[in-house]
Amino acid sequence: MNLDNLFNAAQEAFLFYKNISGREKSDFLTNLAEILEANRSEIVSLAVVESNLPDERINGELGRTVGQIRLFANLVKEGSWVEATVDPAMPDRTPLPRADIRRMLTPLGPVVVFGASNFPLAFSTAGGDTVSALAAGCPVIYKAHPAHPETSKKVADCIHQAISKSNLPQALFTHVEGGIAEGQALVKHPLAKAVAFTGSHTGGKALFDLANQREEPIPVFAEMGSVNPIFCFPQKLKNENDSLAKAFVGSLTLGVGQFCTNPGLIFVPKDQAAAFEKAIAEEMNDIASAPMLHPGIAEAYYNSLQFLQSREELRWVKVADAQHLINGSTALAEIKASDWLKDSVFQQEVFGAFAMMVVYESEAELQEIAKYLHGQLTITVWAESEELKNQLFLINLLEEKCGRLLFKGVPTGVEVGHAMQHGGPYPSTTDARSTSVGAYAIKRFARPIAFQDMPQELLPEALKDGNPLGIWRMVDGEYEK
Amino acid sequence: MNLDNLFNAAQEAFLFYKNISGREKSDFLTNLAEILEANRSEIVSLAVVESNLPDERINGELGRTVGQIRLFANLVKEGSWVEATVDPAMPDRTPLPRADIRRMLTPLGPVVVFGASNFPLAFSTAGGDTVSALAAGCPVIYKAHPAHPETSKKVADCIHQAISKSNLPQALFTHVEGGIAEGQALVKHPLAKAVAFTGSHTGGKALFDLANQREEPIPVFAEMGSVNPIFCFPQKLKNENDSLAKAFVGSLTLGVGQFCTNPGLIFVPKDQAAAFEKAIAEEMNDIASAPMLHPGIAEAYYNSLQFLQSREELRWVKVADAQHLINGSTALAEIKASDWLKDSVFQQEVFGAFAMMVVYESEAELQEIAKYLHGQLTITVWAESEELKNQLFLINLLEEKCGRLLFKGVPTGVEVGHAMQHGGPYPSTTDARSTSVGAYAIKRFARPIAFQDMPQELLPEALKDGNPLGIWRMVDGEYEK
Repeated sequence: MNLDNLFNAAQEAFLFYKNISGREKSDFLTNLAEILEANRSEIVSLAVVESNLPDERINGELGRTVGQIRLFANLVKEGSWVEATVDPAMPDRTPLPRADIRRMLTPLGPVVVFGASNFPLAFSTAGGDTVSALAAGCPVIYKAHPAHPETSKKVADCIHQAISKSNLPQALFTHVEGGIAEGQALVKHPLAKAVAFTGSHTGGKALFDLANQREEPIPVFAEMGSVNPIFCFPQKLKNENDSLAKAFVGSLTLGVGQFCTNPGLIFVPKDQAAAFEKAIAEEMNDIASAPMLHPGIAEAYYNSLQFLQSREELRWVKVADAQHLINGSTALAEIKASDWLKDSVFQQEVFGAFAMMVVYESEAELQEIAKYLHGQLTITVWAESEELKNQLFLINLLEEKCGRLLFKGVPTGVEVGHAMQHGGPYPSTTDARSTSVGAYAIKRFARPIAFQDMPQELLPEALKDGNPLGIWRMVDGEYEK
Repeated sequence: MNLDNLFNAAQEAFLFYKNISGREKSDFLTNLAEILEANRSEIVSLAVVESNLPDERINGELGRTVGQIRLFANLVKEGSWVEATVDPAMPDRTPLPRADIRRMLTPLGPVVVFGASNFPLAFSTAGGDTVSALAAGCPVIYKAHPAHPETSKKVADCIHQAISKSNLPQALFTHVEGGIAEGQALVKHPLAKAVAFTGSHTGGKALFDLANQREEPIPVFAEMGSVNPIFCFPQKLKNENDSLAKAFVGSLTLGVGQFCTNPGLIFVPKDQAAAFEKAIAEEMNDIASAPMLHPGIAEAYYNSLQFLQSREELRWVKVADAQHLINGSTALAEIKASDWLKDSVFQQEVFGAFAMMVVYESEAELQEIAKYLHGQLTITVWAESEELKNQLFLINLLEEKCGRLLFKGVPTGVEVGHAMQHGGPYPSTTDARSTSVGAYAIKRFARPIAFQDMPQELLPEALKDGNPLGIWRMVDGEYEK
């Protein structure tokens, strides 16, 4: 397909679509949710085959995908997300009158979305990036992930059905197949206004660099994963050694360790290390190796382990089973904090069910770790309440390094809600000010515009006198509805 | 000064300052506003000498600077700007319970701010960038503009007095002098978390590239100016030829044409061009040439004009007075839209009181212009209401190209309020999703963080049960206070 034609059609669709009401956008998204549900069995069958993920997981992921779509459908129907802000004119102000100024968010334009291999539905064709962009008012040019081409085509077909049912331009969504070169060409096109990506650091950073080198640089929202460290305090481990080991291994091995939020790094106090390590190793013995997404991912996993095995700082508690064509198995290595602090290679993500246990000797060392740590999607603190009483400084340090800070449970299982933040400091993402999960994800695809002394009849509904949409607005600095 | 020491001190100050209350931040900013007012006469004297700008303008700019500080003082005292969002736990939800998730904005860390030559106060040492960063909770490393060193030192001294008065760490603000190399070193330091800049395209783009090439890329909020086109419709010009010419020349020549928002480009319908041009030329004759900010800026202005004078597409209505060491004079050239559309050199900003009048022949041509136009801070439409009835498509196109769209008055005189958007698509800024003027400017220096199952006693006040700060929060998707 000719890229200019593709983008020109998307731009034309954009200029139409940006003027339809939130209710119409909501109806379109609701249609999409219903069509996906109606095609559940076929979509799930395709995705199970193409991803090697179990039926139950894929069914759950489709449920989550549909849930996300309904969240955005509700958000744009309600309409307050546009941050309508009105400073009415003050014609009699001295020394100078004030003009009438009204601000709101407006969609960016056509957006390029890249699918993720590890979420063939929820972060792919009709996943969070696509749907939050469509909700914001942006057409999507979607680069399918080559790991699940048939699933992607099927879901794209559902999106086109929903577009038809809503009488919207088909160019609101374009499904593009291909490899790296095709993806790069999309990012380089002058009519592309933003990029969303979920995947590897290498891939995300390459797109970020490419987008910044354009004649008109554009934002890249790349979620590139992280190792999601867990900080364990002594009393907590003493009290809950076995259940925490079970929770840890469960979270580590969820999806064969192929989530962005699997905890691959755990900091354990010296006195508790032996008991905790033993419990983890036992839990790991119960986890059968399972197929990874595709052979390339399994190969990369074993290559990473092999590389780490050459490092004498690591003591291997459990080595992975011998490499299978595609199966991934658990692995666990231990390292002293003083060694871990010396080489950032020990912070690199190993995509798969490998965990590094770092044994620390003091709270001072924990603070050093926190300062040295790379940016993460999540950090988890496992501590009894009384152990945190004097840890405000450490907690502040950890806040600097993550987008979500947990004090209970595990980082996997990202809730899709209003308060979720799924995005953190670099290198976990290229834009810590954004989230790719939850309601705020829509804000990535919009920018503010202010209208000064615009005639009422030309103003968008969100900004008209009398607040015809009944949305929350800030008027003269005060919220009102 | 050793840069590591400087940034380490700023980082240490940050970890203290991020935990003080909005009220304390507000008191600090209010102290600063009062100290600046108390030093008004000395500050104004210095700035007048160093900027060549008249006393009245500098007095007004100090008033604006103090007004901005009070706006942010009120904003952080009120506290709702942090976007507190609470999704309470649902322990009984099936199939899975929901954790307690609470999100808010948290400051980025130490921020590097570059002063602007054309606003020695409002966009400089204690200007909007510095003050919105301090309001957000970020220490500022300020790179003084070499065009007004004594003014900058004096204002820095006021900031340090305010810090002392509020018993805050002095490293909340650091005044750095030097040239390009010193500025680049600040941007490259690993502890810098964002950059704000107001100035030339060359300068802003260089910092943007530098920041993206860091091991950890950081956001750059560069406001690089624009030509702020005015689109004139025939009936409006017929009705108000002389008053619009006067308004146009007044706005063009404000501050000797050295504002980011001077309108340097005006689109005029063919039939009205002669009369309007005559009126503009007459108005220009009344404008005496006046000193520009410094000789380098005057030289660049005359060099740009000389370059344009070699282009045969331009017909010169008024050439600038012969180059004076520092004075800038008005100039006006006319070009056919069909020629203007052929070379983007005609879109480049000439920093000074030069205007290009582009004569268009049809509405179709106006749409072509709108599509071809670079990103702008502002676009102004001068039209009678009835002339806009069928112009929704054109207005949509113009919206894509600016951050503020005006329908009356002139783009200069940027109101500092809640609804102001001062920032637009590239190349007018490097981040169209941000503003450098108005209350939303604070959001540039913060990012979201979510706390999951955080014990009440550790939660920031903004997120605690019972809403102790009494701020607007979104709870389960609904705003409440």
